[in-house]
Amino acid sequence: MGSPILAPSMLAADHTRLAEDIKLVEAAGCTWLHVDIMDGHFVPNLTFGPQTVADLRPKTELFLDVHLMLAQPQHFVEAFAKAGADQITIHVEPSYDVGACLDQLKDLGVKRGVVINPRTPAEAVEPYLREVDIVLAMTVQPGFGGQSFQQDVLEKTAQIAKWRESLGLDFRIEVDGGVNAENAPLCRAKGVDTFVAGTAFFKSEDRSLFRKNIETLD
Amino acid sequence: MGSPILAPSMLAADHTRLAEDIKLVEAAGCTWLHVDIMDGHFVPNLTFGPQTVADLRPKTELFLDVHLMLAQPQHFVEAFAKAGADQITIHVEPSYDVGACLDQLKDLGVKRGVVINPRTPAEAVEPYLREVDIVLAMTVQPGFGGQSFQQDVLEKTAQIAKWRESLGLDFRIEVDGGVNAENAPLCRAKGVDTFVAGTAFFKSEDRSLFRKNIETLD
Amino acid sequence: MGSPILAPSMLAADHTRLAEDIKLVEAAGCTWLHVDIMDGHFVPNLTFGPQTVADLRPKTELFLDVHLMLAQPQHFVEAFAKAGADQITIHVEPSYDVGACLDQLKDLGVKRGVVINPRTPAEAVEPYLREVDIVLAMTVQPGFGGQSFQQDVLEKTAQIAKWRESLGLDFRIEVDGGVNAENAPLCRAKGVDTFVAGTAFFKSEDRSLFRKNIETLD
Amino acid sequence: MGSPILAPSMLAADHTRLAEDIKLVEAAGCTWLHVDIMDGHFVPNLTFGPQTVADLRPKTELFLDVHLMLAQPQHFVEAFAKAGADQITIHVEPSYDVGACLDQLKDLGVKRGVVINPRTPAEAVEPYLREVDIVLAMTVQPGFGGQSFQQDVLEKTAQIAKWRESLGLDFRIEVDGGVNAENAPLCRAKGVDTFVAGTAFFKSEDRSLFRKNIETLD
Amino acid sequence: MGSPILAPSMLAADHTRLAEDIKLVEAAGCTWLHVDIMDGHFVPNLTFGPQTVADLRPKTELFLDVHLMLAQPQHFVEAFAKAGADQITIHVEPSYDVGACLDQLKDLGVKRGVVINPRTPAEAVEPYLREVDIVLAMTVQPGFGGQSFQQDVLEKTAQIAKWRESLGLDFRIEVDGGVNAENAPLCRAKGVDTFVAGTAFFKSEDRSLFRKNIETLD
Amino acid sequence: MGSPILAPSMLAADHTRLAEDIKLVEAAGCTWLHVDIMDGHFVPNLTFGPQTVADLRPKTELFLDVHLMLAQPQHFVEAFAKAGADQITIHVEPSYDVGACLDQLKDLGVKRGVVINPRTPAEAVEPYLREVDIVLAMTVQPGFGGQSFQQDVLEKTAQIAKWRESLGLDFRIEVDGGVNAENAPLCRAKGVDTFVAGTAFFKSEDRSLFRKNIETLD
Repeated sequence: MGSPILAPSMLAADHTRLAEDIKLVEAAGCTWLHVDIMDGHFVPNLTFGPQTVADLRPKTELFLDVHLMLAQPQHFVEAFAKAGADQITIHVEPSYDVGACLDQLKDLGVKRGVVINPRTPAEAVEPYLREVDIVLAMTVQPGFGGQSFQQDVLEKTAQIAKWRESLGLDFRIEVDGGVNAENAPLCRAKGVDTFVAGTAFFKSEDRSLFRKNIETLD
Repeated sequence: MGSPILAPSMLAADHTRLAEDIKLVEAAGCTWLHVDIMDGHFVPNLTFGPQTVADLRPKTELFLDVHLMLAQPQHFVEAFAKAGADQITIHVEPSYDVGACLDQLKDLGVKRGVVINPRTPAEAVEPYLREVDIVLAMTVQPGFGGQSFQQDVLEKTAQIAKWRESLGLDFRIEVDGGVNAENAPLCRAKGVDTFVAGTAFFKSEDRSLFRKNIETLD
Repeated sequence: MGSPILAPSMLAADHTRLAEDIKLVEAAGCTWLHVDIMDGHFVPNLTFGPQTVADLRPKTELFLDVHLMLAQPQHFVEAFAKAGADQITIHVEPSYDVGACLDQLKDLGVKRGVVINPRTPAEAVEPYLREVDIVLAMTVQPGFGGQSFQQDVLEKTAQIAKWRESLGLDFRIEVDGGVNAENAPLCRAKGVDTFVAGTAFFKSEDRSLFRKNIETLD
Repeated sequence: MGSPILAPSMLAADHTRLAEDIKLVEAAGCTWLHVDIMDGHFVPNLTFGPQTVADLRPKTELFLDVHLMLAQPQHFVEAFAKAGADQITIHVEPSYDVGACLDQLKDLGVKRGVVINPRTPAEAVEPYLREVDIVLAMTVQPGFGGQSFQQDVLEKTAQIAKWRESLGLDFRIEVDGGVNAENAPLCRAKGVDTFVAGTAFFKSEDRSLFRKNIETLD
Repeated sequence: MGSPILAPSMLAADHTRLAEDIKLVEAAGCTWLHVDIMDGHFVPNLTFGPQTVADLRPKTELFLDVHLMLAQPQHFVEAFAKAGADQITIHVEPSYDVGACLDQLKDLGVKRGVVINPRTPAEAVEPYLREVDIVLAMTVQPGFGGQSFQQDVLEKTAQIAKWRESLGLDFRIEVDGGVNAENAPLCRAKGVDTFVAGTAFFKSEDRSLFRKNIETLD
Repeated sequence: MGSPILAPSMLAADHTRLAEDIKLVEAAGCTWLHVDIMDGHFVPNLTFGPQTVADLRPKTELFLDVHLMLAQPQHFVEAFAKAGADQITIHVEPSYDVGACLDQLKDLGVKRGVVINPRTPAEAVEPYLREVDIVLAMTVQPGFGGQSFQQDVLEKTAQIAKWRESLGLDFRIEVDGGVNAENAPLCRAKGVDTFVAGTAFFKSEDRSLFRKNIETLD
């Protein structure tokens, strides 16, 4: 299990002042930024695109963790990689060739991962564990805001962590959705080492402390 | 035919400094801002979402002209109207009930319009002319960048302008794609009164002059 | 223009006592029964199927006017015709070969017609006028209940009636959705000769009178 | 394994006299009624809708076991629950989030289950066993009539029953399609405790005896 | 109206001896060869692909008239053009941007045309008349074999021929499906100048005479 | 594990001289012919159809191994079986009922198998092992040419071979894509007994030797 990392989600930033809001992320001592890309088809919302990543890239050295919530991600991974993504994660639920898309990501030279929705069984990511850098387990249904953290997802992260150990692998396990100071330790206890936080981070009174609290979890 | 209006396209702004770039739009004396929304399905690109519009709204009084390039716009018009769009335009090409979606827009209390791609016949918008505030004729295939202005689209704007006159209507006619100082007069001569400009505006040495050149066309 | 006919809609009957409720239809002196078939795809509701028509057929001599609200009606017209439909109407909006499906209906030996939603232009049925027995203009968006009659649809029935006259044809023109005693004369004035009524008929204090009021319109 | 229950299928009743035919079900001493909902997309047939259930509800205390054969059941579970379904079962084959739909059913306060077609592997329901009230294994391909019971499906019910025991769970196991007096004991021997019967029940000379024969299986 | 041309359809050749069978076409004095490409989606059959055309090209100087019966022809026009097609025709019925695909064909430097099914209204090709080299009116529903010539399609060819004349254009008008010596003169009288023939040609006792009979029609 | 068989792929033959090229296959002493059917939807290419098989059948006694790369194979298996296929293989990736389609194949009296793409997990074919005659593991992504053999697919064939042994079954294991003299022994060592070869076979200087090298592998 890797040392804990906080990945603030750009979704909770001001969409018209992203360049400024990522300074808050940097100022808090963060090293990662989570970027949510939605297509209005796989999820019922729309957010950013490749140009957002391209315009962000020269302004920061944050590790850009780009989460594609797309029905057909294989058509867009190249655009996001070229725009400057450091890591791209793709969902296993839609109908497309997940493995072939992971191959595309490898060829593009970016880190790569798979994502599952709260109710997708952990077994759905098992075939890909040997080759990914990260597995993201959604703790809310993506696309809808204002949902609360689904704690039973942690049974899946625990299962995935067990596979990680038994297979001698070292991919990261990330959670996204309703993560806060209170439930982060529960996540950590279930194998999670990467924590996406949106409003909880940006609205925090002391962002630096928020980060430290996460990143010093045992 | 209305007096000419320039609508700078947010697509050509820095996607991480939109709040600052719209000050350039305001400083140039513009009153409109064109917002391109893409879903990666109807067009092969992704850009902004409802939250972008919502974060923009309190920062400007520009008339927000939101152009939805979506395969199923009926599911998103409410989100964009609530986010603060002043006008929403929808394409006639995808398979959905265009008229019913225009009714939704009416109920939402926003101005509304229909859009056609460069090769969609003008007849496709004819049934909606009596109720729209604007007709947008794309002068490039939407979604792809770096295309040049397709001048033959102006035959369609001329036809639409003719219907406008013969029916005694006063909707606006807008063009979008590769519009610049050189071809704007040709557009104007063919019934166009609303000009979307992206790079040509933002990269212009004198944006105020660029606007004046457009907005003083006869 | 044909003499006016009332076609009570089975949608407003008790779905568990259809055989009894059609006796109310017969007792009111009606000769037609309108049967709404929905697939949960073209419209967001589900109702009856071919077996309903088959079970109905031996119990009544009412003219069964079966309105298919289906995304792919071509796969079901044979089943409904064999079940005993006297007339089958199909929508022009979904993506399928409407003309070829009308040919199927001809071969099946049933009367046939085309249907348009409230916001579909009248021109959409024009190519089929020479061969249909009926054109149905929806006066509410099908599938949703509790909507009120959309009076502007009558401009379309007037247009269709004009074509009927100029082409020397004699197909019927039917309206469906929110039709009642009050708006029926308006419909009649705009070329309508076939009136679907649901709740207004079944909840009427005097169904026979309701029918007469419709069927004696000039 | 629960005590055996017979669930007569409304599909085999007279679709125009459902209210009367369910009296036959009650008179035979049955406590369940199986309601087949088809959308013409997931299966090539159409049957009943939410209004059928709503009209049925006040007329009977039978446990309404509503089987949704729909391509997108998540859009309809609320309508059927509100109409009065006691239990709703959903297929695992179509592309939608089965787990999220089971959550919807939980929130709606109805009993819930998953269904598999004759050739879908038993493993497809395994991830849901801990939360369902019932697993339905189709013994004919749904939607088509006149098919005979596929006995090899019982290998799957045996497997599912084994999981039920090893996990200490108590969900029911139901079969549907060609079930009759002859094969019911075979089913029972393979872990089945809930038997849907259509024509075999309604056409039976002594329905009460038919029920007893099923419900007294060891 | 152009001088009459016979275009034998490769569909009726021996699919394992195409190179030999086209010698029969050449020997009969023909100058065109019609190549039917089917995808099993837009039409319920599969036939040849780009490699067939590529392997054919160096063996003949026949004008290769490639008829794409594809749901998404825009993805395949380049492959067929590069394979050596002289002319490519595309259907107007599926959901894609017909005009943009005609632009692709122009850029590829091949002759181009639009096709309509027997029941698609002639109006569907009207917007493209100014730019096409040919309009193909199917006289049977494509994909199914053994259908007879639908004579009422000739009303459409007559209408299209009328537009051709009134607009001063010179595109060809082609018919395909059940064309034979008997109905060819009827076609000719209705503006047709290009005749696809399959079995009628290949099974003809004297193919040269068959061709002459067609190509000497007034 | 069966004795090794070479199945030359018709894809690499001259598509206009198939009848002649299969003589080369026969002359090399081969007993199988692999026929690739593509629909331009499941894979981005189009090739042959049922008529090709039908025209081939009377000309050869080669065992016709027909590999359907189709999004909806269930609609075409009958046509290919009737055309004379000896064996039909279907992919597990698209959304359709694989098991029911295998039942269709059984009823049609042909040998049958399942196919997986390079990145589809081996587990995807596990439920069907007891009933198939062959499992085909693609060693390149189907539809695209000029790809090199993906050696890591052999881990899957080894896994499938292990299941074959432990279950006491005797289905064949086939590889397709970039197979040549060099990698064939590696395949053989991983449980493969059926080798599809295209260009490597047809371009071979001594086809008979090529076959022997494969068919004498231990």
